Amino acid sequence: MKAEIISLGTELLLGSILNTNARFVSQKLAEIGVDLYYQTTIGDNPSRLIESIKKAVVRSDVVIITGGLGPTVDDITIETISRLTGGRLILDEKVLKDLEDYFRLKGLKVPRESLRQAYMPKGAAIIRNTIGTAPGIITEYKGKIIICLPGPPREMEPIFENKIMPYIKKKFKGTWVIVSRTIKTTGLAESQIDKKVRDLLKLRPPTTVGIYAKLGEVDLTIMAKDENVKKAADAIEKIEKKIRQRLKRHIFGYDYDTLEGSAANILTKKKIRLAIAESCTGGLVANRLTDISGSSRYFLMGIVAYSNDIKTNILGVSKESIKRYGAVSENVALEMANGIRFLACADIGIGITGIAGPTGVTKGKPVGLVYIALTGCGKNIVKELRFKGSRQEIKFQASQTALDMLRLNS
Amino acid sequence: MKAEIISLGTELLLGSILNTNARFVSQKLAEIGVDLYYQTTIGDNPSRLIESIKKAVVRSDVVIITGGLGPTVDDITIETISRLTGGRLILDEKVLKDLEDYFRLKGLKVPRESLRQAYMPKGAAIIRNTIGTAPGIITEYKGKIIICLPGPPREMEPIFENKIMPYIKKKFKGTWVIVSRTIKTTGLAESQIDKKVRDLLKLRPPTTVGIYAKLGEVDLTIMAKDENVKKAADAIEKIEKKIRQRLKRHIFGYDYDTLEGSAANILTKKKIRLAIAESCTGGLVANRLTDISGSSRYFLMGIVAYSNDIKTNILGVSKESIKRYGAVSENVALEMANGIRFLACADIGIGITGIAGPTGVTKGKPVGLVYIALTGCGKNIVKELRFKGSRQEIKFQASQTALDMLRLNS
Repeated sequence: MKAEIISLGTELLLGSILNTNARFVSQKLAEIGVDLYYQTTIGDNPSRLIESIKKAVVRSDVVIITGGLGPTVDDITIETISRLTGGRLILDEKVLKDLEDYFRLKGLKVPRESLRQAYMPKGAAIIRNTIGTAPGIITEYKGKIIICLPGPPREMEPIFENKIMPYIKKKFKGTWVIVSRTIKTTGLAESQIDKKVRDLLKLRPPTTVGIYAKLGEVDLTIMAKDENVKKAADAIEKIEKKIRQRLKRHIFGYDYDTLEGSAANILTKKKIRLAIAESCTGGLVANRLTDISGSSRYFLMGIVAYSNDIKTNILGVSKESIKRYGAVSENVALEMANGIRFLACADIGIGITGIAGPTGVTKGKPVGLVYIALTGCGKNIVKELRFKGSRQEIKFQASQTALDMLRLNS
Repeated sequence: MKAEIISLGTELLLGSILNTNARFVSQKLAEIGVDLYYQTTIGDNPSRLIESIKKAVVRSDVVIITGGLGPTVDDITIETISRLTGGRLILDEKVLKDLEDYFRLKGLKVPRESLRQAYMPKGAAIIRNTIGTAPGIITEYKGKIIICLPGPPREMEPIFENKIMPYIKKKFKGTWVIVSRTIKTTGLAESQIDKKVRDLLKLRPPTTVGIYAKLGEVDLTIMAKDENVKKAADAIEKIEKKIRQRLKRHIFGYDYDTLEGSAANILTKKKIRLAIAESCTGGLVANRLTDISGSSRYFLMGIVAYSNDIKTNILGVSKESIKRYGAVSENVALEMANGIRFLACADIGIGITGIAGPTGVTKGKPVGLVYIALTGCGKNIVKELRFKGSRQEIKFQASQTALDMLRLNS
């Protein structure tokens, strides 16, 4: 079975935003073995949309259109589809009710312009959007399937995953599948990982390994193509085992795992309660840990202690240490970790102090110098790190290291 | 003048990588006033490339193809172009020399498979690649211009900027320029903004206004196309003035401004010192404010007070209030704001308490309910908000509101 994607949006043609939707849909289609030969991006223009759909239905069985479902006059997808398929627009009571509920939650009535979104082409199946106001639709044209989805990724992605993928899988039983598995690591540079798995990176289809470096993280993706999921999964398992043996504890998770999630799992499992004192990371570590649902089970307290006064008055860091070693030092990081641990009655305390830049450099202490301490549960560790990059990049890398220390030492 | 982009690469169709090339080229073309109506992505397949080029030359004056220039058998662009244009492949001595130099630097001879890259279609102009091994080419087909560029962004981008843009500008005497300006707002929904500027959204070229909703933010982008920058800027200024009059204080910035940056500017200018007590946002507000360089001037302290014990013991929230109104209440938000303000000796205190979900719901208090208080400098404000979305989305929307309150009340 063949599919293609049409992305709508003048902002895509102007290069104002990246087309993450095309990537997401492509990836998901590959996972279920659907062939994709074309992605087309056009502006918010009815005649070009019609032309693109007409071409697409000749080549493919399913056409997936993202964007153009919003409430504004720019949003032309539904009207264009109704014109093309001849299914005239009629008020859909269920969609109207969803719209009313959506706005009621905000204490508002449905704005007049949003009412437009309740009119759907006759005969189209409606796909509810539980996040935004624009429902998706599934309809037919020239015997082929047309699927229209909202443009905002946070609305499109869950709809695609929860509604469209099962629909497509059921509709077309695939003849071969691609299975992929991503192994996520931190603590080693791309070149160090490359060296350890170089032979695997050279593998040719049907089983391949790709390496993708991100900030503070390197991912390895194994892809296998086979007639059935079991065979593909077996091929992946074989390679995965090799990678696990070579990268060991640098692996923090798989696929959609996050480093904060892995750290959270360990803390939850071991019933360890944590408190964090952050200086240069400014609350980022606390923020990432509290992104995980259920974080109140292990996260007691965070303090962002920017000034020396806060460090001494609240966290009990000694003035002597700040004077002798400087606020950015091993000693202060350790005293911060201990201070917050006692203050919050926590099992483990983390202290982070450093220079995120671009200002704040002192003699012998360059931008990117960060000390991270972890104390409690019999541990008393401090690391000196030197990061490169922008202020936000330095903050992020420091937060990666802190979460990794937490994962490995809890 | 019209251009279109064809991106080649099976990894794009599999969703393994994001198509940053299409975005980059689109953005650069917009800067020099070239119209772009189509981006097409196809795999490494000669017949689909030929089909796509044939369609493109009917619609556009210039076709920009990225990818497929490498040394492997998958790389089909040069051969396909030579077949299509009838310019047979001949060895280019200059390209060969570049290849030899490239590999010599690495202490290697030119690998046999890379020798292929020295064969260029007769009649094509060669564009040297000083970073990788694959040169680009410019050729003609059916009177239209075909430009082929290497796929790796770090090779493509400098070639496009340094060689292709001057070429296009010269070829089509940059008679037009496009200037754009983005107006960033928060606090109003997309449909509310749409209502206020509907007439402007209907404007047709040369001056247009687009509306883009993000989480907790709605942007309006004005674009003007004219013969010279001055005229285009004047056209933008006229529209911008109207938008400013209608949206007033909901506008927090322009172009690359951020909400945290706008709040930071006001705090810095007024020499106001801030402390924040966060519960459901988990440090996100502190993190966003400390992303701004120089934040130590106005940011004294943040506390992430997740448990009731921390709220009462450290922030001095009364047990009575928690018992009577619940931890998620107006009263507790206000007491948190006052508590952190006194603790840090700050001018302004912010207190945030809410339910980020998906767990933590109590009777009458749904996921997404958030109270944000701001006290100090003669202010004593508390807002009740109801957000929708995932845990992270609720955290983010709450942080937007907190930063907006800070911006408007400092």
